[in-house]
Amino acid sequence: MKPGTIHGVGLGPGSQDLMSVRADRLIRGASHVAYFRKRGRTGHARSIVEGLIAFDAIELPMEYPVTTEIPFDDPRYNELLAAFYERHVAQLTEIAAAGQDVVVLCEGDPFFYGSFMHLYTRLQGRVPVAVVPGITGMSAAWTATGRPVTWGDDILTVLMGTLPEAMLVERIAQTDALVVMKIGRNLDKVRRALAETGREDEAWLIEYAAMPQQRILPLHEVGDSVPYFSILLIHGNGRRP
Amino acid sequence: MKPGTIHGVGLGPGSQDLMSVRADRLIRGASHVAYFRKRGRTGHARSIVEGLIAFDAIELPMEYPVTTEIPFDDPRYNELLAAFYERHVAQLTEIAAAGQDVVVLCEGDPFFYGSFMHLYTRLQGRVPVAVVPGITGMSAAWTATGRPVTWGDDILTVLMGTLPEAMLVERIAQTDALVVMKIGRNLDKVRRALAETGREDEAWLIEYAAMPQQRILPLHEVGDSVPYFSILLIHGNGRRP
Ligand SMILES: C[S@@+](CC[C@H](N)C(=O)[O-])C[C@H]1O[C@@H](n2cnc3c(N)ncnc32)[C@H](O)[C@@H]1O
Ligand SMILES: C[S@@+](CC[C@H](N)C(=O)[O-])C[C@H]1O[C@@H](n2cnc3c(N)ncnc32)[C@H](O)[C@@H]1O
Repeated sequence: MKPGTIHGVGLGPGSQDLMSVRADRLIRGASHVAYFRKRGRTGHARSIVEGLIAFDAIELPMEYPVTTEIPFDDPRYNELLAAFYERHVAQLTEIAAAGQDVVVLCEGDPFFYGSFMHLYTRLQGRVPVAVVPGITGMSAAWTATGRPVTWGDDILTVLMGTLPEAMLVERIAQTDALVVMKIGRNLDKVRRALAETGREDEAWLIEYAAMPQQRILPLHEVGDSVPYFSILLIHGNGRRP
Repeated sequence: MKPGTIHGVGLGPGSQDLMSVRADRLIRGASHVAYFRKRGRTGHARSIVEGLIAFDAIELPMEYPVTTEIPFDDPRYNELLAAFYERHVAQLTEIAAAGQDVVVLCEGDPFFYGSFMHLYTRLQGRVPVAVVPGITGMSAAWTATGRPVTWGDDILTVLMGTLPEAMLVERIAQTDALVVMKIGRNLDKVRRALAETGREDEAWLIEYAAMPQQRILPLHEVGDSVPYFSILLIHGNGRRP
């Protein structure tokens, strides 16, 4: 039997019509739709495609065993997650081996800090896998600010809020345009790093870019906490005619 | 009369079905379609939408007065380009003032090193302008390699091949994942910078990502010249469970 294909499909930043035409077609036509979610939640990726999935499609929610209960650096964190990915890779491989395609929903672009990557590397060589790129959250974020992010030969640096403070300081000081993702509980650290480089007044915070709750604030107007879907941005100012 | 809106519409990397659903709708419904091109050419953005535009849509090609004939740093370069942008801003403003919408076709994502940005800033405050983000060329490039670009807290740096060699060396040495755009006649310089940092064996070159001519090569197999649509890539190797 010809095996099915596992499609890692980028959904874009959250608005249904910012999905690609290819993603839209694959999702509407899918017999099996898989997606990550926190235990007991609808799942953000799943909610983006609400109303698109066929009424008789089989849904395969993949529920994270841990999210923030165990710290990153605890070895149990990696063990639990690795076992979780292996389990779902086995499930997806079985479906594909039976000749069925599966669409795996991915927020933004699948290969850009995405969870699907952990399935992808494990699926290699076992079943056919295809990836559909998507509009990233950061593209939606800078579009939301109404200001271009990079001009001429501006340098763009993308940092995670999880990096050590000293590293953040070093890189923020050197770049023209800046994107910081995964801010959440790292907000204070990111703020201090911006202050140390004297760049806090250039920074914008975009919550839920391209989603109904979208909010754009200069960093100094942001309170003590930000949602998971938050991006910090500094615009470049490079050469322009 | 209610003025029309100028829509800067991201087309994505080149494949028609990697356009967003929103872009697809706007382009099919457009009465006026504007796009940049080199004198005497079809224009790359225009060729991406071949077959989508309404038969009676009015096309507004905007032909660059200079591209590479005059060097960047010659003051005439900026003068000529500024006059060119002003001229087309006047044209677009006139159409919008008459109540008509215009779709301006933009390769990739409009606010990410895009030419539309030069119209956008000049249109501000004159007529309504809306921007539709798109899948970037770099997303298509890393997808084409079949390997995720960033893991965990990998740092991604985006550089232009037009930067001075010393700057390229400094930044290439420091980053985890790397994207270099606008390579063209800067290929030798970029190569030297990679060699100086000892990273040339990690580098991939992707030509025409997501287009029919797509080609993916390890840098050491690349010859003396690369096309305009080329991206150099180093994948990150960060933390993964
Ligand atoms: C695990 S990464 C996934 C990135 C995704 N693959 C992409 O291409 O944008 C999650 C982080 O992306 C950022 N993010 C993604 N989409 C976003 C959106 N629509 N609005 C705000 N932040 C977003 C947030 O910083 C969040 O912490
Ligand atoms: C003026 S910039 C425009 C970038 C565009 N706005 C984007 O979002 O990708 C032009 C550069 O983008 C890169 N590029 C854009 N699309 C590409 C593609 N499909 N394949 C390869 N390179 C591409 C090339 O490096 C090219 O020199």
